[in-house]
Amino acid sequence: MPKNYEMCWLNYEKLNDEEISYYREWFRKVSLFTDERAVSSEIERFAKDCLGMNVLIEKESINRKKLIVIGEVDRICKFIDTPKLDKAGSFALVHRKFQDKDLLILTAKDRSGLIYGAFKLIECVRLGEKFEGMNITQAPAVKFRMLNHWDNLDGSVERGYAGRSIFFKANRIIINRRTEDYARLLASIGINGVVLNNVNVKDRAVLLIDHDAYLKELARLAEIFRKYAIKIYLSVNFASPIHIGRLNTADPLDEGVKNWWKRQVKKLYQFIPDFGGFLVKADSEFNPGPHYFGRTHAEGANMLAQALEPFDGFVIWRTFVYNCLQDWRDYSTDRAKAAYENFKPLDGQFRENVILQTKFGPMDFQVREPVSPLFGALEKTNQILELQITQEYTGQQIHLCYLGTFWKEILDFDTFAKGPGSFVKRIIDGTVFERKNCGIAGVSNVGDDPNWTGHDLAQANLYTFGRLAHNPDESVERIVEDWITLTFGKDERVKENIKYMLMKSHRAYEKYTTPFGLGWMVNPGHHYGPNPEGYEYSKWGTYHRANCQAIGVDRSSRGTGFTLQYHSPWREIFDSIDSCPEDLLLFFHRVRYDHRMRSGKTLLQSMYDLHFEGVEEVEEFLRKWEEIKDRIDSEKYKRVHERLLMQLEHAKEWRDVINTYFFRKTNVPDEKGRKIHP
Amino acid sequence: MPKNYEMCWLNYEKLNDEEISYYREWFRKVSLFTDERAVSSEIERFAKDCLGMNVLIEKESINRKKLIVIGEVDRICKFIDTPKLDKAGSFALVHRKFQDKDLLILTAKDRSGLIYGAFKLIECVRLGEKFEGMNITQAPAVKFRMLNHWDNLDGSVERGYAGRSIFFKANRIIINRRTEDYARLLASIGINGVVLNNVNVKDRAVLLIDHDAYLKELARLAEIFRKYAIKIYLSVNFASPIHIGRLNTADPLDEGVKNWWKRQVKKLYQFIPDFGGFLVKADSEFNPGPHYFGRTHAEGANMLAQALEPFDGFVIWRTFVYNCLQDWRDYSTDRAKAAYENFKPLDGQFRENVILQTKFGPMDFQVREPVSPLFGALEKTNQILELQITQEYTGQQIHLCYLGTFWKEILDFDTFAKGPGSFVKRIIDGTVFERKNCGIAGVSNVGDDPNWTGHDLAQANLYTFGRLAHNPDESVERIVEDWITLTFGKDERVKENIKYMLMKSHRAYEKYTTPFGLGWMVNPGHHYGPNPEGYEYSKWGTYHRANCQAIGVDRSSRGTGFTLQYHSPWREIFDSIDSCPEDLLLFFHRVRYDHRMRSGKTLLQSMYDLHFEGVEEVEEFLRKWEEIKDRIDSEKYKRVHERLLMQLEHAKEWRDVINTYFFRKTNVPDEKGRKIHP
Repeated sequence: MPKNYEMCWLNYEKLNDEEISYYREWFRKVSLFTDERAVSSEIERFAKDCLGMNVLIEKESINRKKLIVIGEVDRICKFIDTPKLDKAGSFALVHRKFQDKDLLILTAKDRSGLIYGAFKLIECVRLGEKFEGMNITQAPAVKFRMLNHWDNLDGSVERGYAGRSIFFKANRIIINRRTEDYARLLASIGINGVVLNNVNVKDRAVLLIDHDAYLKELARLAEIFRKYAIKIYLSVNFASPIHIGRLNTADPLDEGVKNWWKRQVKKLYQFIPDFGGFLVKADSEFNPGPHYFGRTHAEGANMLAQALEPFDGFVIWRTFVYNCLQDWRDYSTDRAKAAYENFKPLDGQFRENVILQTKFGPMDFQVREPVSPLFGALEKTNQILELQITQEYTGQQIHLCYLGTFWKEILDFDTFAKGPGSFVKRIIDGTVFERKNCGIAGVSNVGDDPNWTGHDLAQANLYTFGRLAHNPDESVERIVEDWITLTFGKDERVKENIKYMLMKSHRAYEKYTTPFGLGWMVNPGHHYGPNPEGYEYSKWGTYHRANCQAIGVDRSSRGTGFTLQYHSPWREIFDSIDSCPEDLLLFFHRVRYDHRMRSGKTLLQSMYDLHFEGVEEVEEFLRKWEEIKDRIDSEKYKRVHERLLMQLEHAKEWRDVINTYFFRKTNVPDEKGRKIHP
Repeated sequence: MPKNYEMCWLNYEKLNDEEISYYREWFRKVSLFTDERAVSSEIERFAKDCLGMNVLIEKESINRKKLIVIGEVDRICKFIDTPKLDKAGSFALVHRKFQDKDLLILTAKDRSGLIYGAFKLIECVRLGEKFEGMNITQAPAVKFRMLNHWDNLDGSVERGYAGRSIFFKANRIIINRRTEDYARLLASIGINGVVLNNVNVKDRAVLLIDHDAYLKELARLAEIFRKYAIKIYLSVNFASPIHIGRLNTADPLDEGVKNWWKRQVKKLYQFIPDFGGFLVKADSEFNPGPHYFGRTHAEGANMLAQALEPFDGFVIWRTFVYNCLQDWRDYSTDRAKAAYENFKPLDGQFRENVILQTKFGPMDFQVREPVSPLFGALEKTNQILELQITQEYTGQQIHLCYLGTFWKEILDFDTFAKGPGSFVKRIIDGTVFERKNCGIAGVSNVGDDPNWTGHDLAQANLYTFGRLAHNPDESVERIVEDWITLTFGKDERVKENIKYMLMKSHRAYEKYTTPFGLGWMVNPGHHYGPNPEGYEYSKWGTYHRANCQAIGVDRSSRGTGFTLQYHSPWREIFDSIDSCPEDLLLFFHRVRYDHRMRSGKTLLQSMYDLHFEGVEEVEEFLRKWEEIKDRIDSEKYKRVHERLLMQLEHAKEWRDVINTYFFRKTNVPDEKGRKIHP
């Protein structure tokens, strides 16, 4: 039966003749100094599909002129010198002469390294890299490289824009051929942990950790993922002792509650011995948590951590905690300050197997926010950076919005927590605060659509997430180029045009939606499309308070004081309207429409200009795509083309709504006389 | 088993001793010159509950000093003179001396009249009216007195705020004791037709007219309602020939389609010989209709009418037709004009058993709209006025909003279609255009809540609808007083306070929400709570286009020309900002905030003032209610009190959001220095 889905960057298409003849020489034989089946089977599959050959795989024999040798470093180093590999997941891919033979050696610290190395080896071939002189050593920079699925047991996916869940359907767990292919996709980009279910744990999802029927299926899932060195995690409801344990409390200091969790965890590990741990959304957006019982987040998380400790499991605890029943008439509360206010005072109180997971920005995945000050503030706490791969506020996989460029800015943000160089990427790799258990998590953009991500080009976001998790120092341009080649082949024009589209797309989206860090002008609930005052009188704490003269919340030291949560010099930079980066101006300041920007233009005119520009850029994306029509698969072409046409129409809607909104507020027309509807 | 619901104005509580001793004399014996069981059983029930006695009911014997005689006029007139009764549903309730006896005679033209008369008789007793000299003659002014239920087969009720459907549950029809009690409630206020299902006919509801299982149950329902002289009607999907007939078209001129409907109607009448007819929402808000097949509404309606004609059935065809995919950037289309534009050109083309049903206003049940110009425009077409008893835009039965006062204004509106006196009430009673089949329909506010309407005081809306349908000339004050007495008893303070609350409530709601005919500043979708720009950039055609100087759509002859749909002098009155009634100013005109109202105050200041006033009035309602705490049933007191507290909180939210909205637009503070959030 043919697959009803594609394999994205792992679509092993046949190489050209010249390449085939070169690589066949190498792949005639692979000598294994390992028992890792995932590795050999991937290489066999690749060789069959890309090189049209069957590989002869033998155990520990070196008896051809050219051959590939694969094995754990402690077995390989017995007969040949290898690079030093001491980090989990590290591997080397090196060309060595051995006696009279040319060996391409793939060796690794551990089985995960071997798997990453195998995918790297295949990638090198598919990118056309020659083996002579090859000398690659890699190690994942970040320990926890996680995907969070917001999948519900009924098969829906919260904020999912690519079909239904690949894990759940009608309250049952799905296990099929696609499950393993998904594990392969993730392993190929170095993901080592997957949270299967939505952080909002409702209805039957609370039973996942309890019902034997679920646990048996989870064990089968875990087995598949284990093959690819990926651990599974579950989101849990903090009130589980009440919901499933029939206790009358979930108080983390209650002995009955503690014991209930211990029993539950023990049972879980009987089914899944390498279970990763729990992800918890507590005291957040109507989810229960320790506050309800008068306890702190530390008390709540530590209680779970103690239950997990004997099994080396982790508690990943989200810091997305704020008052979601705010009164818009309350000007003193500032949602941006909430995560810091809730968790900074607890720094140092969490056990070693607790990790706090923080969204990149202080609000909620807007198209642009400053980096959350919490990253630079938690010195004695393990941290995970949470990014959103699924495009909730960034076009919902109808709009092309490549996120790698933006993520890179986030990772490269210098918190100055320990002086210059205290980048976010150095916090999540543990170096800044010398922490062992840190990481990065991405909210998955995957569903059961044939192309996994709805928009074909949104696959680039998933791919990039993995690559950056593995190595945050890598160039996004390089990642994008690799992704295009692996997905669309080696046509230079295709590469050039798609790269242009991806690299410009986030900025373009920002321009025609809400530039200058404004955010939140979306329709409430589903978060698609413009609605300038959609959140203005709501309970969610997200206001811009535009009047006829100015817009924005003063979050400076003269306002809500949010800027004070940053280290110097950001504290000072953000605090002043003159030094604040303009793309965050309306996040930090209340600004008059006639404020002169650095360009000399008013804020208002800049707003108009960006909105016209943004739409023009989408028009350019469309042209770039149409140019390569005959160079790519026609089905993919059509799918993306359709979405680009929708994007253009919806970008115009954004432009017109936002421009009209400001025009109505100010009665000041566009300087250049372009059409703004009155 | 005790009932789990109340009987509203039919709660037959025991009268006081004095009353009992007076009325017992009369009710010792009732002499029947009719076979109408519903009449005698209602009188027995009443006598048992209110007078604590069993009535001796005999056939045609007049053998006591005082007695009650009930019978059709052609039987009664044989032995005593009776008032002239020639209209359907008419009855007389008169005191006559006959030989040496005192007779209270209830006589009627037909069985419906006897039923209305019986309820009237009971009402008179419960209101304490003496029989001596009684001389009441009544006839329903309006022929079709309908309730429309927007009940879905799954048990949900579109725009329902009083629980689940009383007719449907999980795709089955509910028939129980409550069904008959509902029929009694409706008969007691003179309703003679009930549309059981939602005008949006979706999912299994399309099968109601087809599946034998449904038809059998509908026949049982019809039997219950028939007992109370109420016909049942069904909403149908115009594309039924496709959905259930498996035809490939629903084109009304297609012979196959015509024949399909004829067969279907014939089958229906085999089950329900007095079936009322079809209600159709066609070519409206994504419902299919004749336009889809290139045909007119007249062609669509007439085709159905021909199928129903042999059985004396009717087609009620809604005129709520407009472009619901409007682009907010399109300033030439005006939704207010749509019904007239769609149906005026068809005037005279509809068959006699077609009735066009038109919402009272040109938009959609806003808290205030002008009366639709269509009423005065359709001279050769039967018409039904559609009112909304359920409080979609008027507080959703959380807010107290008595609608009788507003309905009265609508009924008393003079269209001038045939010169002065061409009131809406005279159009729907058929006199203005000399039409036979006209009427009034109310969208039901009933659900399976124990008190039927969620808010106890919302029962008054249902009661008033029936009374006004019966006699649009009646005083609303009188209706309210009667309703209070029948529901809460005869305590004068209770009557005074509740009357105060009801009579002021619609105006108060209007004040703190969107006065001056503005409307639409509600949250999209569910329509509860303030959202000043909630519909501003939507596809629904409902815009106010507020900017920093002015608000409103110019619907005058200089604008969209909507005013031209009215007869003189309204056309001229509405057309000028100086003569337009101020409570409709923002419906018809775009007005500057600094426009001086007749009071001398600016529009803006008037807006602020009304919002403060509205909230103060709710505070007064609360005080009035609390004053009568000890004088009414404590459960009812608590329920209403809870809702009043919510109303007050939500009224403040309305006040603050709307005031802030205008303050932000203008930067002009309240003249009286009251708090407006910046």
